[in-house]
Amino acid sequence: MPVISLTTDFGLKDGNVGVMKGVIWRICPTAQIADISHLIVPQNIREAALILFRSAPYFPAGTIHVVVVDPGVGTARRPIAARIGVQYFVCPDNGILTPLLERAEEQGQTVEIVHLDKLNYWLPEVSRVFHGRDIFAPCAAHLADGVPLRALGTPITDPVRLDLPKPVRTETGWRGEVIHIDRFGNVASNIHSKHLRESQADKSGIIVKVCGVEIRGLVDTFGERPEGELIALLGSTGNLIVSVVNGNAAARLNVKIGDAFDAIFS
Amino acid sequence: MPVISLTTDFGLKDGNVGVMKGVIWRICPTAQIADISHLIVPQNIREAALILFRSAPYFPAGTIHVVVVDPGVGTARRPIAARIGVQYFVCPDNGILTPLLERAEEQGQTVEIVHLDKLNYWLPEVSRVFHGRDIFAPCAAHLADGVPLRALGTPITDPVRLDLPKPVRTETGWRGEVIHIDRFGNVASNIHSKHLRESQADKSGIIVKVCGVEIRGLVDTFGERPEGELIALLGSTGNLIVSVVNGNAAARLNVKIGDAFDAIFS
Amino acid sequence: MPVISLTTDFGLKDGNVGVMKGVIWRICPTAQIADISHLIVPQNIREAALILFRSAPYFPAGTIHVVVVDPGVGTARRPIAARIGVQYFVCPDNGILTPLLERAEEQGQTVEIVHLDKLNYWLPEVSRVFHGRDIFAPCAAHLADGVPLRALGTPITDPVRLDLPKPVRTETGWRGEVIHIDRFGNVASNIHSKHLRESQADKSGIIVKVCGVEIRGLVDTFGERPEGELIALLGSTGNLIVSVVNGNAAARLNVKIGDAFDAIFS
Repeated sequence: MPVISLTTDFGLKDGNVGVMKGVIWRICPTAQIADISHLIVPQNIREAALILFRSAPYFPAGTIHVVVVDPGVGTARRPIAARIGVQYFVCPDNGILTPLLERAEEQGQTVEIVHLDKLNYWLPEVSRVFHGRDIFAPCAAHLADGVPLRALGTPITDPVRLDLPKPVRTETGWRGEVIHIDRFGNVASNIHSKHLRESQADKSGIIVKVCGVEIRGLVDTFGERPEGELIALLGSTGNLIVSVVNGNAAARLNVKIGDAFDAIFS
Repeated sequence: MPVISLTTDFGLKDGNVGVMKGVIWRICPTAQIADISHLIVPQNIREAALILFRSAPYFPAGTIHVVVVDPGVGTARRPIAARIGVQYFVCPDNGILTPLLERAEEQGQTVEIVHLDKLNYWLPEVSRVFHGRDIFAPCAAHLADGVPLRALGTPITDPVRLDLPKPVRTETGWRGEVIHIDRFGNVASNIHSKHLRESQADKSGIIVKVCGVEIRGLVDTFGERPEGELIALLGSTGNLIVSVVNGNAAARLNVKIGDAFDAIFS
Repeated sequence: MPVISLTTDFGLKDGNVGVMKGVIWRICPTAQIADISHLIVPQNIREAALILFRSAPYFPAGTIHVVVVDPGVGTARRPIAARIGVQYFVCPDNGILTPLLERAEEQGQTVEIVHLDKLNYWLPEVSRVFHGRDIFAPCAAHLADGVPLRALGTPITDPVRLDLPKPVRTETGWRGEVIHIDRFGNVASNIHSKHLRESQADKSGIIVKVCGVEIRGLVDTFGERPEGELIALLGSTGNLIVSVVNGNAAARLNVKIGDAFDAIFS
């Protein structure tokens, strides 16, 4: 049973996500469909890119990830589909795949991308405002149903890339920024365990600085410290995060996406 | 694999949607189940009717749509199931199906409706307050499992109808009203492309008026105008809508459901 | 097709629920997965226990319920899996199963519990902060795929129990407390129809008291009284509840979880 995931900024009220599932099952009735998120901030491509990047690796080989955060819907921006390693992605060509493509390049995975320009795989009537329903869902369903990627469109090699903020090596450590705040108020930075490893940093000696607060030393897990204490640790995707034990660090620190986040080696 | 969709006002926290899925899978283990919406405003039959009407056509033939927005639960209002064209609907008899029935009549689709009065297809114990779990989910699952519609109840021909607002032809165009505001703040009216076609209106000459604001000319898509500009266009279901490019028109205009919405031919 | 349910405090935005589904389908591609709730108040074990307890009985025999509300993630608290009667539960050992275990004991159902200590059924890399992904989802998927419960871990007999508030028999009736407020503002107490039956209470003679308001007599259903009236009745799980007909009792009464809730026999 093929697996399809959905990531959008459609919200959960208006029925648009259900409509995409209906379209998929008309074409590929056996597809297993998982929602990754439909609460992406409207038009926030960067947030969608991050959540997809963190989630995709846990899905089966062959999974088809449909991502519809599409401020350019109905304009000249291309609809695309990509194979990155052993998974597929169907989305507007607006940079959503950037972190996945960067990782693929780092890891030497093969990548194929097509411009979805074969209209026989779209719905017969295509609106100018809902390509999730009219182009992306049906193309994903055809992929799931066995249509080869190359049949869906013309190969391209120049997908749009986002210029994503990367942490910078400083004299005393790494300067990154806040890239995600989750439901628990955990504050995630773009400083990753690989950066700390590179610098052979001693975990107990790292000082984390964010929003004027300093936290000395990383812990391994929430339970090491008493409830309410502010801690720094590696999150579930290897990123350096700041949390409050059974509390909400984002609210405590009044932090926002893009704020500076430092790891200083003492 | 039979497809069942769910539309309710249950919200996503209390577990009631999951319970309906459990009930369905006890009876029909292979059903594919899609959520259309569970965030219908409590008891708002009209909103549920609209969202179902927009979503249902995109589902496969044979899909069974379960709709539980049911202020009359436990009273004399009848539980019903209907075949409208090639799809099925299971819901309280409170008018939720009105727009679907009107469209079926316009398009000459056949309709069959039964009063769900065969208790052997209900759960053995039926509460007076949760018929979604005790009547609608099991009846839908039996339908999905191959039980014929007629076996589930006694035919009726007098389903409750809502008196839905229709746009009115004026001397200068159409007067409709706001019927939906989506997550993006797009403001949808009940004036449809078919009304504009009827009047052979020239798109560039139409003036849209809502909340004291006038927009001259329809665009084809969001990308035609700069970010932040207020535009009028045909939405994904053919309804005339007002939007802000990558912004929120509903917030900008402070509009609400039922506000007047005019299309004036200049 | 095996059925798995998910109950967490992860919310619906960050992608963590989708990740668990990806992990499950890598191991057991045919699993049907239902969300029960992902909007449990962060770290609120008691709320998760209640919603699971109300929902689980409606699922098929053999269903595997995964519950991840886990303030102790990464500490010494054990990951466990249990068979309670004909269903399975996979969760941290923090008391979430208490009401299910109490009911099993009342009803003479058999119970088997194991400490999930067989690492070959976990993901190869286990973070210290996301056991839903790394331990609970894969163990549930292996169960769904046919691995026997006993293979997943070492039997235990001392699961953590919550001390849940029970209603107390008073001279004039029962004193309980508010245990749940749903999306409709229905206010549920822990006084159950079984308590009223025990006391052979006459429904029309019961006075319900909550937040200083008294309601005389229980009704059978919402429709018996006019819109806006405050009523008391038995909810869909047999608990004594207070509602406003087509309105919101919780908002009207300004009630909160834990407030006293009395049933007085007059």
